Amino acid sequence: MTNKTKLIKPSLPKGTRDILPRQLRQREKVILLVKSVFEKYGYQPLETPALENLEVLSGKYGEEGEKLIFKILKRGEELKNSLGDLAEKHKNQFNSSALADLGLRYDLTVPLARVIAMYQNEIKLPFKRYQIQPVWRADRPQKGRYREFYQCDVDVVGTASMLADAEIIQITYEILKVLGFKQFAIRVNHRKILTGLVEYCGVDKSQAGAVILALDKFDKIGREGVKEELKARGIPEKVGDKLLPVLELCGDNQIVLKEIEALFSESVQGTQGVKETQEWLEYIRIMGIPEDAISLDLYLARGLEYYTGPIFESVVEKPKIGSLTGGGRYDQLIGMFLGREIPATGTTIGIERIIDVMSELGLLEDIREKTDVLVTIFNPETRTASLRIAAELRKNDINCETYLEDKDSLREQIGYANSKGIRLAVIVGPQEERQNQALVKDLRTGEQKSYSQAELSNQIRKLLSD
Amino acid sequence: MTNKTKLIKPSLPKGTRDILPRQLRQREKVILLVKSVFEKYGYQPLETPALENLEVLSGKYGEEGEKLIFKILKRGEELKNSLGDLAEKHKNQFNSSALADLGLRYDLTVPLARVIAMYQNEIKLPFKRYQIQPVWRADRPQKGRYREFYQCDVDVVGTASMLADAEIIQITYEILKVLGFKQFAIRVNHRKILTGLVEYCGVDKSQAGAVILALDKFDKIGREGVKEELKARGIPEKVGDKLLPVLELCGDNQIVLKEIEALFSESVQGTQGVKETQEWLEYIRIMGIPEDAISLDLYLARGLEYYTGPIFESVVEKPKIGSLTGGGRYDQLIGMFLGREIPATGTTIGIERIIDVMSELGLLEDIREKTDVLVTIFNPETRTASLRIAAELRKNDINCETYLEDKDSLREQIGYANSKGIRLAVIVGPQEERQNQALVKDLRTGEQKSYSQAELSNQIRKLLSD
Repeated sequence: MTNKTKLIKPSLPKGTRDILPRQLRQREKVILLVKSVFEKYGYQPLETPALENLEVLSGKYGEEGEKLIFKILKRGEELKNSLGDLAEKHKNQFNSSALADLGLRYDLTVPLARVIAMYQNEIKLPFKRYQIQPVWRADRPQKGRYREFYQCDVDVVGTASMLADAEIIQITYEILKVLGFKQFAIRVNHRKILTGLVEYCGVDKSQAGAVILALDKFDKIGREGVKEELKARGIPEKVGDKLLPVLELCGDNQIVLKEIEALFSESVQGTQGVKETQEWLEYIRIMGIPEDAISLDLYLARGLEYYTGPIFESVVEKPKIGSLTGGGRYDQLIGMFLGREIPATGTTIGIERIIDVMSELGLLEDIREKTDVLVTIFNPETRTASLRIAAELRKNDINCETYLEDKDSLREQIGYANSKGIRLAVIVGPQEERQNQALVKDLRTGEQKSYSQAELSNQIRKLLSD
Repeated sequence: MTNKTKLIKPSLPKGTRDILPRQLRQREKVILLVKSVFEKYGYQPLETPALENLEVLSGKYGEEGEKLIFKILKRGEELKNSLGDLAEKHKNQFNSSALADLGLRYDLTVPLARVIAMYQNEIKLPFKRYQIQPVWRADRPQKGRYREFYQCDVDVVGTASMLADAEIIQITYEILKVLGFKQFAIRVNHRKILTGLVEYCGVDKSQAGAVILALDKFDKIGREGVKEELKARGIPEKVGDKLLPVLELCGDNQIVLKEIEALFSESVQGTQGVKETQEWLEYIRIMGIPEDAISLDLYLARGLEYYTGPIFESVVEKPKIGSLTGGGRYDQLIGMFLGREIPATGTTIGIERIIDVMSELGLLEDIREKTDVLVTIFNPETRTASLRIAAELRKNDINCETYLEDKDSLREQIGYANSKGIRLAVIVGPQEERQNQALVKDLRTGEQKSYSQAELSNQIRKLLSD
């Protein structure tokens, strides 16, 4: 690094942020808790590079998504050639990809599909993996929406068994519990039930997507809203009349399933969806998840995404903060680089959202600073005693900091400890030094007491355990 | 995500890699150990975004470094305008930065300087921080050299006290110990001692850099090599004759310092360097670092970098694997965005190198798979029993995996457990189910034994603790 910098105003790219120590400790706590659940269920960690070849990323995220990929400029001769080429041949055609060869990770699913294709000999299926890494999207930044943010995905690749979908629900439930949420519901549905509904209403296949998108909004816009939505999309009124009473079926999940099973007698897909959902919910029950935590919502669609089987999301009801996790089965996606189907199911844990929400709810207030003790330096004459005490405390596995500037007053040193949230300060003045003692000041209560230096580690451990 | 992918061969960008579970667990172990030392000394974690504004990065890494920054292509209208501009006005002038607005993090020092400038009210000095994040360099990839790799820096910002430099040595020493290295040395020197040496030899100021670069190679090319190097750089022969005997001073660090102090009587910088080094080494001694672990090497320069005070690196001697950490004091760098000096010192822990080396030395072999138990599914009839047992084990905090595909044979399930390194398999066949028992098979020894289901968690805990 050279030093011929001219003074420029330091700034952060739009939609990015620094994570200072206090915030980072909160994030680390949440991530540690989430990881502990993954590990408890035998899921293994994976990391992939931030850089991906552009051809691996492109064609995967739709037209809109494509625009949000951060592209890396080609370098050296290659860039020179591409620019020349662009200037000569394509003057009026504008194709930014010609200038870029790499892109930044946009999600964690395409990398997983790439990994599954590239390491077929190393990775034994079913592969249970979790991945917690940043992704980048050149999206318009807003409150709570960043251009660089962490995603956290947990997936099972290589089995079509409903056992896997049930386990993902079990993990979701345990994560929300472990994080301390009290009232939440896991909403579930099945893509094939949606297809069954569409078929039951006699909707033309070409309009199936429009119907599903309309009823996906049932939760937000209600019965009348869905009716209007259907009308706006040019769906005959009688479809709505047939559909809406079914969407409003509620009560015991098993009974609702029985009811729609009867309606789906002529829909092969619908019947299969009901059967799979019955099996799935039975596994969830056996796994010990309370039945009232699972809500079968027949209108839940999670958009027109790539799901092929069970779909699910979790909603915290009190306080009303919306969905924190979401996922489903996506049997046609993971094989994208292999040209064959590989069944897979999994969920995203909305880690950024969870951190925001927990922080707002004060659930992350109790994070204790990891440094328990500041060993002050009273003056240059007692410095040696202070350094020795600090080394001794660390030998006894006490996290302790030495104040590294002996020109500062004791008052400044204590102020520093307070600003960091350190609990105890150790002070060795000339008198303590002569008597082989050390003064320990509790910075929360202001109380202080002298101990013999030989006893110090034990005494401090006692104070910290209070 | 859409599904209209044409089949493309999955590949990784040059110089990047996936980190599969086994390797990732090894990395995590090393990082956890290193972090535990940082925390023990009161250092706090920091994370900064991978994206930085290009103007923040540029002008910081020298001409060569500048070329290695990965640049992010501008987007939308801005890119269009820049391209138009380029085509019209600068046809023959080639400036890639015109097309890019962001760059990827290149090191952890410039982001630290930016953070110090941007959060002057939030961050209290001295600021003791560590940062472990990937950086990107468009360098030619080689064995062990990647284009995306982790850096790990630990620094103290805001104090000029030698106490801080001493603590960095203490941390380096403890990290190497904790990681399990047996024979290593921490080599130390001081930039002002180097200046003193140059002045003592009567070298012209303009040639100081050339002399320092030559003697930095002393370790590798020896006495004669340095002589030739000096000659090649046009330094008078008498300079070498005066310099070399001093470089070869060895033995007790204090005695060497006394000897050069006498030689430096006319060098203000040199005298100050000796004084600071004496103070520094005295602190290191008081902190409990054995004196033979610290080697004062008067030729050590660590390039012509930005160091202004103490410099240091650690070298593992057995096996001979070179330097694993390196750093120094750099008082003129951290204030780059503020236009004033902010003293700082710190070291890089070569985390990638350390992982490579430890893996080669077999020091990471003992990492145990975190899943301890596979609960197999004997057949669909006993599935419920298996699922209940798995839930019960997890309730007792035993990491345990359920096999998620009940169509697979027991043999396949055991093979899966072996491939993941899982120690115990639980099997519930029809007979075990009738008797409320479960068979536990130790996959390392092949031994197996039945236990009552009520006793299972305790028995498994016992088996795992063996």
